[in-house]
Amino acid sequence: MEKLTDQILHEVIQPRPANSFKGTFGKVTLVGGNRNFGGAIIMASTAAVCAGAGLVTTATAASNSGALHAQLPEAMFADFTADQQLADLVRAATTVVVGPGLGDDAQSLHILKNVFNHVRPEQNLVIDGSAITLMAREELSAPAANVIYTPHEMEWQRLSGIKIGEQTEARNRAVRDQLNATVVLKKHHTEIYTADQVYQLTIGSPAQAVGGMGDTLAGMVGGFTAEFNDQPQKAVLAAVYAHSAIADQIAESQYIVLPHQISRALPAFMKKMEQDPNEHQIGFLS
Amino acid sequence: MEKLTDQILHEVIQPRPANSFKGTFGKVTLVGGNRNFGGAIIMASTAAVCAGAGLVTTATAASNSGALHAQLPEAMFADFTADQQLADLVRAATTVVVGPGLGDDAQSLHILKNVFNHVRPEQNLVIDGSAITLMAREELSAPAANVIYTPHEMEWQRLSGIKIGEQTEARNRAVRDQLNATVVLKKHHTEIYTADQVYQLTIGSPAQAVGGMGDTLAGMVGGFTAEFNDQPQKAVLAAVYAHSAIADQIAESQYIVLPHQISRALPAFMKKMEQDPNEHQIGFLS
Amino acid sequence: MEKLTDQILHEVIQPRPANSFKGTFGKVTLVGGNRNFGGAIIMASTAAVCAGAGLVTTATAASNSGALHAQLPEAMFADFTADQQLADLVRAATTVVVGPGLGDDAQSLHILKNVFNHVRPEQNLVIDGSAITLMAREELSAPAANVIYTPHEMEWQRLSGIKIGEQTEARNRAVRDQLNATVVLKKHHTEIYTADQVYQLTIGSPAQAVGGMGDTLAGMVGGFTAEFNDQPQKAVLAAVYAHSAIADQIAESQYIVLPHQISRALPAFMKKMEQDPNEHQIGFLS
Amino acid sequence: MEKLTDQILHEVIQPRPANSFKGTFGKVTLVGGNRNFGGAIIMASTAAVCAGAGLVTTATAASNSGALHAQLPEAMFADFTADQQLADLVRAATTVVVGPGLGDDAQSLHILKNVFNHVRPEQNLVIDGSAITLMAREELSAPAANVIYTPHEMEWQRLSGIKIGEQTEARNRAVRDQLNATVVLKKHHTEIYTADQVYQLTIGSPAQAVGGMGDTLAGMVGGFTAEFNDQPQKAVLAAVYAHSAIADQIAESQYIVLPHQISRALPAFMKKMEQDPNEHQIGFLS
Repeated sequence: MEKLTDQILHEVIQPRPANSFKGTFGKVTLVGGNRNFGGAIIMASTAAVCAGAGLVTTATAASNSGALHAQLPEAMFADFTADQQLADLVRAATTVVVGPGLGDDAQSLHILKNVFNHVRPEQNLVIDGSAITLMAREELSAPAANVIYTPHEMEWQRLSGIKIGEQTEARNRAVRDQLNATVVLKKHHTEIYTADQVYQLTIGSPAQAVGGMGDTLAGMVGGFTAEFNDQPQKAVLAAVYAHSAIADQIAESQYIVLPHQISRALPAFMKKMEQDPNEHQIGFLS
Repeated sequence: MEKLTDQILHEVIQPRPANSFKGTFGKVTLVGGNRNFGGAIIMASTAAVCAGAGLVTTATAASNSGALHAQLPEAMFADFTADQQLADLVRAATTVVVGPGLGDDAQSLHILKNVFNHVRPEQNLVIDGSAITLMAREELSAPAANVIYTPHEMEWQRLSGIKIGEQTEARNRAVRDQLNATVVLKKHHTEIYTADQVYQLTIGSPAQAVGGMGDTLAGMVGGFTAEFNDQPQKAVLAAVYAHSAIADQIAESQYIVLPHQISRALPAFMKKMEQDPNEHQIGFLS
Repeated sequence: MEKLTDQILHEVIQPRPANSFKGTFGKVTLVGGNRNFGGAIIMASTAAVCAGAGLVTTATAASNSGALHAQLPEAMFADFTADQQLADLVRAATTVVVGPGLGDDAQSLHILKNVFNHVRPEQNLVIDGSAITLMAREELSAPAANVIYTPHEMEWQRLSGIKIGEQTEARNRAVRDQLNATVVLKKHHTEIYTADQVYQLTIGSPAQAVGGMGDTLAGMVGGFTAEFNDQPQKAVLAAVYAHSAIADQIAESQYIVLPHQISRALPAFMKKMEQDPNEHQIGFLS
Repeated sequence: MEKLTDQILHEVIQPRPANSFKGTFGKVTLVGGNRNFGGAIIMASTAAVCAGAGLVTTATAASNSGALHAQLPEAMFADFTADQQLADLVRAATTVVVGPGLGDDAQSLHILKNVFNHVRPEQNLVIDGSAITLMAREELSAPAANVIYTPHEMEWQRLSGIKIGEQTEARNRAVRDQLNATVVLKKHHTEIYTADQVYQLTIGSPAQAVGGMGDTLAGMVGGFTAEFNDQPQKAVLAAVYAHSAIADQIAESQYIVLPHQISRALPAFMKKMEQDPNEHQIGFLS
């Protein structure tokens, strides 16, 4: 298992080309947030916007539209029950993120299938939260795409069939090979399983143990893979590392880290990473 | 009567264990906020989230869903008139907070009874505001649970039958013994009645005399009892103390303290308490 | 004409008594904000809350409920078309503010009459914006109360019959005497007409010439008269002076002042006024 | 082609006259934001308010009303499907901005025609985003007015018929002459075509390549032309320059610039420009 370092940030977060426009940095379509869990998709969308994705659309329950725009006018809204519109948005995306706050009822399943039916092989597809639970329960397969799963240990148990406590590197790799996907296994010392390698995160803290932290990570993975789409594998690693690196800096002065604080800190953090690889140890918040 | 000191904060607010996850820090279900008083339950929920509870769900009127997510995407939403869903959320909680902005009409009463019917003995149940008024008026008893009442003097008069001005320590203790609950009697120099002891708060200021201050306290008691559930009695004391300690620091530079400012200051305040018991006199806001 | 000085702030803004509670600082009911002008009543309500009124209720169009709570959870909401509920809220108030964003259609008139029908002589009644226009057009009289009008010059022309350009001190006094009210005539060097005296404001700047500035002043007058109800006349003067004093400090570094910035600066500004009459020249924002 | 410099800011942004009121600084009516793209018109409106326009009204889909007021209570709301009300608001405006988030369906077209039918020759009309696309597709002509188009290169291709890559100064000038309008062609080194001259912007950065940046520019052009209506041509140039000048300062410490950050920085930036032409190189954010 290879330990991730901040080197990954410097490899991925490069100065933007002078002659670029928002289309250069990809489109993210995020799908989730039923009537009860609207905050989850809002937090994921905030992460995608603040990470610098070019265009972000949030497909969610109609009742979340007002709160989405109140929090994040930069994101566009779609009703996730409008099948044709959602299909179009999925097809148009560089990266699709499905799952944050999606829920696990019949409507959730219908939406998940709609997403899966319209993903194309060249796209990135981040599958998070209840989307993972639904796949396991309904024995759904992911479509052909660059698939990234972001389960916590219980969700991984459901998807992989490997019980918590028995999730060894070898077993996890075996299931990952079957899935042919990237797996970000969220836990104390998160592990990232790719085709070639297993990486371990050695930063992060219990100050991150609050609701919404995973939704934010899913949104960041969505934003990074769209924006840095020429190296989507490294983009995943950089997103995972940045998420905890920012949290660690905030946790120096806070007992807990609120998820949206990580997103809002992204623009300044990413600037530091772009600028000066030798000074990144110095707190970006100061 | 024993005077509370900041010692209680250091006893309760300890560094989080490295290998913890959001489930470690409990679930809070807050019930309140009718069509008119939505702000009350939003403020209480903000306090619970910022205190560091692992998962927070807000059961309120449907018309408050948008404002809740706009203020606090970290909280989940439930319609408090969905009886079965509310019952499930009550059963799943470490701590239930009922009352902020609940109102006192027939719908309020129906919801309160639904909550009481599904609380289990091992849970913490914080009863605040109009829930207290309803109990007194309807002669409802609280269910078996670790019950914490947070009345102001008029609500205590209604619940205890002891008139303001006659609420002596001895009388209050007698009623508390009948109720077999913790009573946080909010007043100038708030008193906390427990089974063993009566505590008095000697901090706090008239800058706190604004609407929503009590809703915030109820949410903090909810958050602390869920997060520090191994010592729920001390968690109540710590929440009450922290609420006024933060307010006092804000009041050094403000004529009034807005309730949400206390909640938003919690993560930094709690870090100071965790870190360095000898330096807590120094303002955490600086 | 007597020039107002910051002396009025020190006379009115005194340290709060230690043994006080939110009821000590009065109740404000604000009525306005139709479907189109919701922002006006939200800004007025924000001013009343930040000024330190004990309890603030906003009676407005139902469509504004979400934005109100998203901006200002400290305020309670009422549907201003619910006649009985509005009547009750008017009767319960220390100060009623009517007009910001009320509009001037049939619904607006119905609501205004409902307010006027339930005001009591011992209450403060702030009449602002379209409520003044409606009174002039419909030849409505204000009810017996401590009435404070806050017209700009065009609204004063409508109410008084004195054309802009002919609004001399003597003529304004004569109409004021007929109205038996306080008149805050908003203009370059705002004038305040009371029973005994005419005051002139010599501070303020064109950075305040933006929409919502008057709504914020009306809310501040509402908050101050409720909170400092033992000297409501001086409370009006203090509110008017504080509004421009804060704006002047903000305008030192801003081309325009956004109205809500004044409200949000109130708690710190009022603390400075309470604390140290000899140091108030020093910017409270530093 | 003449390079724009910050000289244009000092020419346009002058100290406000002491005896001015909100009417002095013009009225802006912004039209856009369908059910899916509400954030666009909210961002444009925020820019118009923060630029200092006297009164700002946002005509948009009813579902955006709550988010508008939650973000920006200073703006008034109108339902853009209320034909008569929209016509009145268009007629009353100093500047009309149409297009941000308007969409391109039948409803969008109906609204656009309604706007065009009620614009008067002496008004400023900013045509942005999907309004440009609709004009090209439907072969609509703009009404007689001081028209300002703010297309990006693809929108300009649609409107002018000149393909991207062939959009030379001479060709663009020729089409501009036919249109008899100002054209702000947004691209790397934005070009502004006026009747007399072509200007080039040499500032700005790829940190601006995020969704909503153009909506914010359209709103700023709206605000500046209303506020500085005695020199509307220079007001356009100043808005374009200020937009990127602020972004460049933010981009010194951020990898991307969020559009609303530019708007929120406007009051302080404009103060610096007004005050001291020799010190504007120094960062206004410090």
